[in-house]
Amino acid sequence: MAVKREGPTHRQRQALATKSAIAAAARRLFATQGYVGTTITAIAEAADIPAPTIYSAFGGKSAILRAIAWEATGTLDVDRTHAEALAQSDPRDGLRMAANLQRRQYEVMYDVIDIYQEAARTDPDIAADMQTILANRERAFRRHLEAITPHLTVEVDEGVAIYQTLVLPEVYRTLVLEHAWPLNQYETWLANSLITQLTG
Amino acid sequence: MAVKREGPTHRQRQALATKSAIAAAARRLFATQGYVGTTITAIAEAADIPAPTIYSAFGGKSAILRAIAWEATGTLDVDRTHAEALAQSDPRDGLRMAANLQRRQYEVMYDVIDIYQEAARTDPDIAADMQTILANRERAFRRHLEAITPHLTVEVDEGVAIYQTLVLPEVYRTLVLEHAWPLNQYETWLANSLITQLTG
Repeated sequence: MAVKREGPTHRQRQALATKSAIAAAARRLFATQGYVGTTITAIAEAADIPAPTIYSAFGGKSAILRAIAWEATGTLDVDRTHAEALAQSDPRDGLRMAANLQRRQYEVMYDVIDIYQEAARTDPDIAADMQTILANRERAFRRHLEAITPHLTVEVDEGVAIYQTLVLPEVYRTLVLEHAWPLNQYETWLANSLITQLTG
Repeated sequence: MAVKREGPTHRQRQALATKSAIAAAARRLFATQGYVGTTITAIAEAADIPAPTIYSAFGGKSAILRAIAWEATGTLDVDRTHAEALAQSDPRDGLRMAANLQRRQYEVMYDVIDIYQEAARTDPDIAADMQTILANRERAFRRHLEAITPHLTVEVDEGVAIYQTLVLPEVYRTLVLEHAWPLNQYETWLANSLITQLTG
């Protein structure tokens, strides 16, 4: 009697391992050579995987970049953390959780965000992705502030603008990458700034 | 008896007017088509000035961009304002003056700063300029904070990092260009943020 196998087949696992190796090589090259400066041929050489395999696995560079972002985001549990943050009874605890999520996001994938920003300048698919991601982020910030409105010392609209400003990748870059702040210092600064500027 | 003429000759005034017309046309094109996407030919057409005249007046695109920045900066009196800011007896007044200077700078030349950032990614001359400009800015912030050290609630190094963060062009872009804050609101937010985060 044929038993239905659980989980992926050997062939599926192989395909996943190949995609993962391509994505890892591409992430390194994008970060060092730039998205525009990286060819599929260069990724093929770095991953030691034939270029036609890369084309059939992904289709092109923008699909590889999307897969990299998808994989990195998957480890962060963004939606659950946002939901937990806005359920906190003390709004300051919720803002601290948001700061911790932001810190983990940059810790895990600042390089990917940087690549996205570069790629969005020339690649319309990635530019459209960026618009969607930023709109989703803004909605999440707004939901958070709407959940703690009685505690806010600013209007929700003004608060969303301040929130988006404080979590900018350029802020992280300035403090952590340029001024070499430890991640804990960045997280504490971000939490305190959110608390002071939004709840007084 | 030959009298030495005061001020520029007619020919010098003509040359200045030509350079000014080239710079104005280039600034509009850089801002709308991008620095990389703008050719000397396009600038020549927009300014109605022959391309060879542009080459002989400036040499190339990076020299035109430098002239644009130089002209815009000239209206701001940056050094005098910095000196005045750090001479204030109330450190909060000095930080308010710094916020006002920053607001005027973005008001007069945010487009030029944006063009510089784009150009620096591909043009080594402009990238070198950017390094110099950013280093000078950091030195000015440091001098300001050293002048008010007794009032600071953070170390000078930490304060410089926070200062640089709050005045980032991306912060201005988020608040004023994306969230349509009036310039006065941006200036007040910046002044209050500097005061709260640096002097408690």
